[in-house]
Parts: sequence; structure tokens; C-alpha cells
Amino acid sequence: MSNRKPLILVSNDDGVVSKGISELVKYLRPLGEIVVMAPDSPRSGNASALTVTQPVHYQLLRKDVGLTVYKCSGTPTDCVKLARNTVLDREPDLVVGGINHGDNSATNVHYSGTMGIAIEGCLNGVPSIGFSLCSHDPGADFEAAGPYIRKIAAMVLEKGLPPLTCLNVNFPDTSELKGVKVCQQAKGRWTKEWEACPRLSDPNYFWLTGSFTDSEPENEKSDQWALANGYVAITPITVDLTAYNSIDSLEACCRESGLCD
Amino acid sequence: MSNRKPLILVSNDDGVVSKGISELVKYLRPLGEIVVMAPDSPRSGNASALTVTQPVHYQLLRKDVGLTVYKCSGTPTDCVKLARNTVLDREPDLVVGGINHGDNSATNVHYSGTMGIAIEGCLNGVPSIGFSLCSHDPGADFEAAGPYIRKIAAMVLEKGLPPLTCLNVNFPDTSELKGVKVCQQAKGRWTKEWEACPRLSDPNYFWLTGSFTDSEPENEKSDQWALANGYVAITPITVDLTAYNSIDSLEACCRESGLCD
Repeated sequence: MSNRKPLILVSNDDGVVSKGISELVKYLRPLGEIVVMAPDSPRSGNASALTVTQPVHYQLLRKDVGLTVYKCSGTPTDCVKLARNTVLDREPDLVVGGINHGDNSATNVHYSGTMGIAIEGCLNGVPSIGFSLCSHDPGADFEAAGPYIRKIAAMVLEKGLPPLTCLNVNFPDTSELKGVKVCQQAKGRWTKEWEACPRLSDPNYFWLTGSFTDSEPENEKSDQWALANGYVAITPITVDLTAYNSIDSLEACCRESGLCD
Repeated sequence: MSNRKPLILVSNDDGVVSKGISELVKYLRPLGEIVVMAPDSPRSGNASALTVTQPVHYQLLRKDVGLTVYKCSGTPTDCVKLARNTVLDREPDLVVGGINHGDNSATNVHYSGTMGIAIEGCLNGVPSIGFSLCSHDPGADFEAAGPYIRKIAAMVLEKGLPPLTCLNVNFPDTSELKGVKVCQQAKGRWTKEWEACPRLSDPNYFWLTGSFTDSEPENEKSDQWALANGYVAITPITVDLTAYNSIDSLEACCRESGLCD
């Protein structure tokens, strides 16, 4: 065991100047040495996207005792990949994304750059967490979340996480949190996803928007239920996407169709 | 049951003018009515990214009997969302991404725009498939893959897929395919991911590159093994990312840390 302080790599998808990442650094700082590598502009909805058609650039913004901050021209996932391979002198003990300004529970996990950060850490064997608050307000109040963030990060630093598993942690937008629930990803769908914004005579311009409908609103195990009822939702997320339960039926199907022996 | 021909929505991440999507349309066309909505520029590595900071635009390129082609300024996932909500008059019977110029097996599934397309279809309850060939050559030879693509798509149109499950289908770059294997997502890591490309006096510019190391090369159930041995790899992918096996241990961990009752 090293007697060095834990090394914590922090990124986000709202950009390096957002309030959420400053608050995250504030809560994590007592736990270790913090290196921030975060996008130089908002990257919401970037999922695990990579930058492949142009070079990615990073730049040192600030270096204090225990805190170094870089901005990066790439995606949230690029930030994790670049930091691990350039500015860090060893593998981080923890990778943390957030605090996102917006809900990343339910199927939002698929689109989330915050969770792209956690997934990237996890794919490299580093315990990883994405934190999100259910408010898009740039000046959102993260005070209630703070103590939970510090405790959850400390827990993961101390005990690690199961292989191929990272955490998706979402906070309801309230000052009175009822506690923590370990959850399942809620099922449901986004609808009314586009709002027309015609330009001159061309009607084919649209803003992405929409509303999410939980298809199991009474499922007390879901992250959406936890959030709707005032709890912090911790959903363990696997990076092994294999649908193991479907393998046998798919093999049978392929045999019937003459695709497999 | 409708007696209309199946409606097949096609997209990709290499862009609407790539060879892979033209080949895909060629193989699928006998199976139904094809609507293509694909990015107007290359979008490799876009994962399930969304466009949120600007409007998304689409434009009709071509309308023939049984084939309509649109280009779109957004990501692969935007293409699926936009087509479903604008140009399609009913829910598609099948969503297909590809044929990707490049390997989307193993952990690449996380970064893949091709699989972003399949995941988006699947999240909306539509049977969905991503097809990829293990060659980055823009003029790659898709001939051997063609008959498999048609059979796999026909099978899925006829029999559907289990809930929350889509297919990640990868072809080795060979003219002699040995058959089909139903697989698990291979485990492993990308290393040497950045190549420096300094600009003037600034050394902090990097191209994303790298090589993948399979951590279980002898696992005959993995998609990487199937591809390395000349088989078509069909990996069923779940869109429910919950790490169900980790829930109990995480709850115990949270209780010990005083986070849960």
C-alpha cells in the first residue's frame, strides 16, 4: 500500500467553468489529490463519444497544492483517456464525473457524458462514479448533495467496486434528502422529442427536447421512484452490455433460421 | 397484422455517402420499404451522443419506390430520433445501423455510433441491429457479409428480439466466413491511445489512436474470439445497464458506511 493520498481524476460534461464541477471538487478535496481534466465547452448528451476527426488539445489552467485543473477540447470520455495517458503520473484511485446539471437516471444513462466518464474509468479498472443533480439550473444548489458525495466517494475509495461496475448517483432537487436507495435503472421512453425551429422558408430545423415517461412508476426499486420520493438514487451500472439472458433464445432462433448449426 | 411491407429505418455513423450504408441498403431492400436518415458527415465514435447546443436539420436527398434517403446534420442517435418523429408515418419494424467501416465488438460497443443507432431503436421498443465490418478501408469489400446481413435482418423481422435487447453483429474482414456464433462482449482494454501531433511550440495536441488487448483471448464465447477465428459474431446487447449482481453487495457496503439503514 502506498502512503500517498488517493489520486482522484475529475471531469464533467457541462464544461470546466460550470458550478457543478467546482462544487464536486470542493466536496472531494479532503479525500485526496484532485486532478481535473474537463471540456472547455458544454458537452451535455455526449455519452461515451470520442473525438476522431481532429486532434484533441489540453491546457493547464491552475495548479495548487492538491488541485490541478486542465481544460480539454475533447469530449468527457476524451478527457479521461487523455488525462490517464498524459498528465497523470499513475493510475487514478477514483474517477468521478459531475456534478451534472440534470437528471441522468433511467435511460438517460445512455446519453450522459457524466456517465461516459464513469464508464471510461470503469473500463480501465478504476472505481468510478457519476454524480448528477435533477436540475438544469446553472446556479443550482448542491449543498444537500455535498455530504452524500463525500461519503459515497470515501466509501468507494475504501472498499472499491465489483469488477465491470460503476455507480450512477442522482440527487433529487431538494434540500431535504431522505437518505440513499440502491436502485435499478428505470424503464421508460422519451416522447415529444423535437421542437420545430424553422429557418427562413426551411421547416426542417429542430431543437432536441422531450419528456420522459416512466413505464413502471410504481416500481419502488427504480431510480426514478427513489428520486420522485426524495431519496438519493445509487444505480450500479455494468460495462458488460451482453444480454446474457437472451443468448440461448437467440442461438435457438439462429438455428431455426439456418444461421447456426 | 398489416399487409404493408416492413418499414426499415437505416442509419450509420460513417455518413450518408459511405460505401457501407449503400451496401446495407442493397442487402436490405428486398425485405421491405427502406428509409435512410444518416449523418451528413462522418460521426465515428459518436456512441449515443445527442445534439443539444444547436438545432438539427434534415434534407431529402432521394425518393424512389421503396427507398427514401435523407441526410441529417446530427449524430447517429439524432438521426433515429428525428426520423421516428418526423419523416416516418409509423413506427419502423426494424432499425438498422451500418455497415460500419470498423470493428464494434468487445468494449468498442460503448463508443460506437452504429450501436448508438441500435440502442436508440431498442429503447423505443423496435427490434434493432448494428452491423460492422472489421476493416476501416473506405472501399472495403462487403460481399461476403451481404447474405448474412439479409438473413439476420429477415430473422429479426420475423421473430423479433427479447425486450430491451438489440444485436451487435460484427464481420471479420475475410471473403470466407465460417458461419455465425452467438457471443459475449469480449473483455479487455485499449492502450497507447494517443499519438502526439504538436502544433508550433505547443506539445499538447494528440490524435486518438490505440490498440485493443483482449484480456481473455482463449474465451471461445467472446465476440473477439469469433472474429479472430473467421466467424460472424452476433452479440446480444442489453439497454438495461443495471449491474443486478452488484446490488446486494452495494447495499451492504452502503449500510456499513452509514449511508443506508
